[in-house]
Amino acid sequence: MGVGSVDPTDPGLFRLWREEILRYGDMDTNGHVNNVAIAQFCEGGRVAFERCGDLQRENADLGLSLAKVTIEFRAEAHFPGMVRIGTRILGFGRSSCRLVQGLFQDGRCIATSEAVSVCFDTRARRAVPYPEAFKARALALAGPAT
Amino acid sequence: MGVGSVDPTDPGLFRLWREEILRYGDMDTNGHVNNVAIAQFCEGGRVAFERCGDLQRENADLGLSLAKVTIEFRAEAHFPGMVRIGTRILGFGRSSCRLVQGLFQDGRCIATSEAVSVCFDTRARRAVPYPEAFKARALALAGPAT
Amino acid sequence: MGVGSVDPTDPGLFRLWREEILRYGDMDTNGHVNNVAIAQFCEGGRVAFERCGDLQRENADLGLSLAKVTIEFRAEAHFPGMVRIGTRILGFGRSSCRLVQGLFQDGRCIATSEAVSVCFDTRARRAVPYPEAFKARALALAGPAT
Amino acid sequence: MGVGSVDPTDPGLFRLWREEILRYGDMDTNGHVNNVAIAQFCEGGRVAFERCGDLQRENADLGLSLAKVTIEFRAEAHFPGMVRIGTRILGFGRSSCRLVQGLFQDGRCIATSEAVSVCFDTRARRAVPYPEAFKARALALAGPAT
Repeated sequence: MGVGSVDPTDPGLFRLWREEILRYGDMDTNGHVNNVAIAQFCEGGRVAFERCGDLQRENADLGLSLAKVTIEFRAEAHFPGMVRIGTRILGFGRSSCRLVQGLFQDGRCIATSEAVSVCFDTRARRAVPYPEAFKARALALAGPAT
Repeated sequence: MGVGSVDPTDPGLFRLWREEILRYGDMDTNGHVNNVAIAQFCEGGRVAFERCGDLQRENADLGLSLAKVTIEFRAEAHFPGMVRIGTRILGFGRSSCRLVQGLFQDGRCIATSEAVSVCFDTRARRAVPYPEAFKARALALAGPAT
Repeated sequence: MGVGSVDPTDPGLFRLWREEILRYGDMDTNGHVNNVAIAQFCEGGRVAFERCGDLQRENADLGLSLAKVTIEFRAEAHFPGMVRIGTRILGFGRSSCRLVQGLFQDGRCIATSEAVSVCFDTRARRAVPYPEAFKARALALAGPAT
Repeated sequence: MGVGSVDPTDPGLFRLWREEILRYGDMDTNGHVNNVAIAQFCEGGRVAFERCGDLQRENADLGLSLAKVTIEFRAEAHFPGMVRIGTRILGFGRSSCRLVQGLFQDGRCIATSEAVSVCFDTRARRAVPYPEAFKARALALAGPAT
């Protein structure tokens, strides 16, 4: 899974943004924001992706399921403050979608992530194709700028 | 970062094990264990790695910092129950260590992970070389079987 | 809400036990187990209460909802290790149940809790009476010893 | 521990506010914000109390430690959205402080809390008196309106 020529440390890459307010409990005994909290912020960006395309509009049983995630931790993040998560669609497969993310605190890139997110039928409990209408809506808001 | 010929879905790969008891809050609205909880279990395995080699024995300021992690989600995990995390050292660099992990519930592989874990001086707040004595101790317990 | 004459710092008070394995992330920047983690352990004990009486046996839509909780923090708890949570029924109202809990690490009481737990119809999204059969089963395992 | 004549379901009671952005993971399998997340929001309000009075200004070793907390859950909270936490000082003892809190989503009170928060010397690991200067600063911002 490569990100090709895109640079997720550049906030200019992203149009879809999610903000999180840091919590005291996001810190660990090292006094910085813990990697598990950052994994949760990546999830926040994926939920923003799901919502920007309104995944449940045509089928209320659909949800996202994470197939694979890679996170690179690039700088310490510190409480208190906010983290902004930019999420961009790299491309859709049949039932999967590749996403790239950049996480920023005060304009500084603290982490980047790539993910393979699967369209999941929560009733049938199996992966299904992303609806074409969802793809179009999501690409319009979180795809490559045109 | 490749894992070469090792297969982390095979519990026989691992000698160092950590167990976690699942909590109700590990589940998400999909009714299965959430990916962020699984990221936390991977951290549990890395802490077991740190402890098996007694990283603070010669220098109390040392800790682990995560540089990069990849997690592949392979099967749903369900509450209640336990998850066992196997952790194996793939190799040491100067101040980094590559780890591979397999996570199992009831003998079934639910996730695998690769990580680059850095030796971090919590006072100086920068990466430092892993102590040779730590490497030897950790390899004896979590390295490739000889 | 009083606990009357019972002493929840005495492990002898409890017959229903739940165990939790502490996680690195349960600690906060003070280097001890955080109060929010302890609130989660109290939840673990309440889930054990729900399960000991098999709340869904006659009605799959039933669940617990917390109406009120009081936690007293009595000693620091430390990672790594385990916490044992004892839970005892103080008494049932129509749709509520009063519980008392003691949390112990290595035999030492780290916290005690009282809770009012409501029987919640997850479909109707309102409190309903606890089924009589559940009450009988739960009291047999988590009520006052006879 | 009583709150006397104050009504924490009235947002007009509070001058010190903390905001939290809800996260997907704050929800549980019931599809609403979990009680443990609400306990974390109460912590956020206590941290705001600590910060409004700048507890470390005269002594960097000081922190808060929670001695007792009571939370009443009054309405379901739902993702996505925000929660506002109002925190008000009820009174200082020698090394303890009684706080009352109201938590609101979209203007609706979802929970109220009372807490006894102790001034904790993180080096000596014991309760110490709140500094008089902290008390004055905190009361000016989070005490009863005058």
